[in-house]
Amino acid sequence: MSSYFDIAEYQSRLDRAAARCRELEIDALLITPGPDLRYLVGYHAHASERLTCLVVSANGPNRLIIPTLERGTALASPLSELDIELIPWEETENPYQLAASVLTTARRVAVDDRMWAIKAYYLREHMPKAHQVPAGPVMNELRMVKSAAEIIELQAAGAAIDRVHEQVPQFLKVGRTEREIASRIAEAIAVEHEQADFVIVAAGPNSASPHHLPSNRRLQDGDVVVIDIGGTTATGYCSDSTRTYSMGEPSADFASEYAELLSAQLRATASVKPGVSCESVDAIARNALTAADLGDFFLHRIGHGIGLETHEEPYMVAGNPHKLVEGNAFSIEPGFYREGVAGARIEDIVVCGPDGPILCNDRPRELLIVEGDS
Amino acid sequence: MSSYFDIAEYQSRLDRAAARCRELEIDALLITPGPDLRYLVGYHAHASERLTCLVVSANGPNRLIIPTLERGTALASPLSELDIELIPWEETENPYQLAASVLTTARRVAVDDRMWAIKAYYLREHMPKAHQVPAGPVMNELRMVKSAAEIIELQAAGAAIDRVHEQVPQFLKVGRTEREIASRIAEAIAVEHEQADFVIVAAGPNSASPHHLPSNRRLQDGDVVVIDIGGTTATGYCSDSTRTYSMGEPSADFASEYAELLSAQLRATASVKPGVSCESVDAIARNALTAADLGDFFLHRIGHGIGLETHEEPYMVAGNPHKLVEGNAFSIEPGFYREGVAGARIEDIVVCGPDGPILCNDRPRELLIVEGDS
Repeated sequence: MSSYFDIAEYQSRLDRAAARCRELEIDALLITPGPDLRYLVGYHAHASERLTCLVVSANGPNRLIIPTLERGTALASPLSELDIELIPWEETENPYQLAASVLTTARRVAVDDRMWAIKAYYLREHMPKAHQVPAGPVMNELRMVKSAAEIIELQAAGAAIDRVHEQVPQFLKVGRTEREIASRIAEAIAVEHEQADFVIVAAGPNSASPHHLPSNRRLQDGDVVVIDIGGTTATGYCSDSTRTYSMGEPSADFASEYAELLSAQLRATASVKPGVSCESVDAIARNALTAADLGDFFLHRIGHGIGLETHEEPYMVAGNPHKLVEGNAFSIEPGFYREGVAGARIEDIVVCGPDGPILCNDRPRELLIVEGDS
Repeated sequence: MSSYFDIAEYQSRLDRAAARCRELEIDALLITPGPDLRYLVGYHAHASERLTCLVVSANGPNRLIIPTLERGTALASPLSELDIELIPWEETENPYQLAASVLTTARRVAVDDRMWAIKAYYLREHMPKAHQVPAGPVMNELRMVKSAAEIIELQAAGAAIDRVHEQVPQFLKVGRTEREIASRIAEAIAVEHEQADFVIVAAGPNSASPHHLPSNRRLQDGDVVVIDIGGTTATGYCSDSTRTYSMGEPSADFASEYAELLSAQLRATASVKPGVSCESVDAIARNALTAADLGDFFLHRIGHGIGLETHEEPYMVAGNPHKLVEGNAFSIEPGFYREGVAGARIEDIVVCGPDGPILCNDRPRELLIVEGDS
């Protein structure tokens, strides 16, 4: 399988980025290694202190400033088939001067959101007449509407993490530490993806800490275990899915609270369709949990966009009025966290389809009861 | 083994950073997740769109702006024992406003070199009166002089990668692809470190590309193979070492050129002592290779600093007049690359000691001849 999309898809992205620059009166985009670069030209470059910078001019041409050393790896990517002029620089040259030399008339340039501050600073120093703005309004608007090919990639990533969750019960053994379990899960993620990105194994009272780091605490009978995991596939798309497990039967109280959480998660998911606002998806789950006296324990937003990054636009949070459009992709992950006691979370990746949600995960969402060794 | 240094070491770093700010008339350092944050307070935070920002004020106090969600993981690090006030923020608060609110009188603030441009931009927007400069002149000056405890960590990282190079001959088999070999090496790096950072396996003509990405080319009898590998240990310190292997006996020409390279590498290494400039270390190897008619094929600088990042100050390159001081740590890695034919590189990590170089790697530097299967 190729790790790239059709050249036509990249060319269309570049063209739409330039068109958006013209609308926003931006003379050029300056894009360094990271998800924006990979999105635009398929080049998955290693970020380093040596400047690599794609210059997308609003009215053409497109250029890539690149260390001579990296020329070979750049040309191995789709950008070699795109209409991009390479401007290589040698070890003792100043690449920021090169960037300025191709943008002498620019008055407004946009730098990628993830650019290192020191690079943005040097670019400002060398282009004192070019006012610097964030490239987010150009790039995020493109990236948050997934193409058909990208949705297939997100579904493949979702299927990969589902296969890992399918294996999780066999890793959960009373007496094993969270770290030991996390290490086994990380291996399984790496097998199913190109790389493991993160593994949260939060057991017993630790399950009440949403971003708990795996510790040396050993699993006990009766523990609730929140498993939130994700990886990146060879095409660069991310997975992210949470399921909650119970070592043996849970308490009746926890089981009934979990049922409320599941209902809230399903209601929020069902609400997804074009025109619905991000904040309203959050509110639907929050109101449901509040009605069940769990609202105070739902400590975070309901979700985040996902694609070439695990967290990207659109953020599903109170205060974000963005109305969903077809192709938006994001997590729906309500939870509740009773400090010192236990917590739970259910997370799926969902794409906004033409009439409703398209799910990228399909593992059972019920509390998964893991029986002890017989 | 703890992943942290003594609290006194972190406290000293914070104090020296503040003192340096006073010298440079910087009111505060703004440090987001990354190597600077880990260096100052031991907190190895995950970089995300949610703002985590250490505010080191030139005249105290120190504060950490942190998402409530991350409070637990932050407090699990040494920063909980340092005199740092935590300022948590909830999902719907504006953390940039919080940062501005504790720096109302600041006129000059320094942001960490690796900060995401979008965060630096929001900080500028919320502190229009605070001129933003890079934190590099504060942080790099501290970080590039390694403490005794850090030198021990770099030596441990060097020993870890040496153990991987010791295993490399058994991975090199005629008929295996570069990718297959890279995958086995990556596993070995991960076993010896906390994580594998990069694996260059460049065989046959690919060895002439310094930053070659592992391909599906199969190893052939007679191939030269450049293996440049590194990982990060649990304490965050990086390894980076290159050795060149030959599948069977090399040509007499290559063997004699390799001998010149080895001589150049040893001479550059031997030149290391306090007071010697970075550019002169580069020049020593370059002049030696030029005298052997190989100067035109030495395509890159001789090395880079190393510590919590694989590449950091000081850069060992023409044009860098920095005079080495005790505790500087960097790679010495001359190479030669004949396009379409073959290349070679020898790389060690070296610390500038009081009287000369302290080596972090001790694998044989000669061309390593791997015999075919019998």
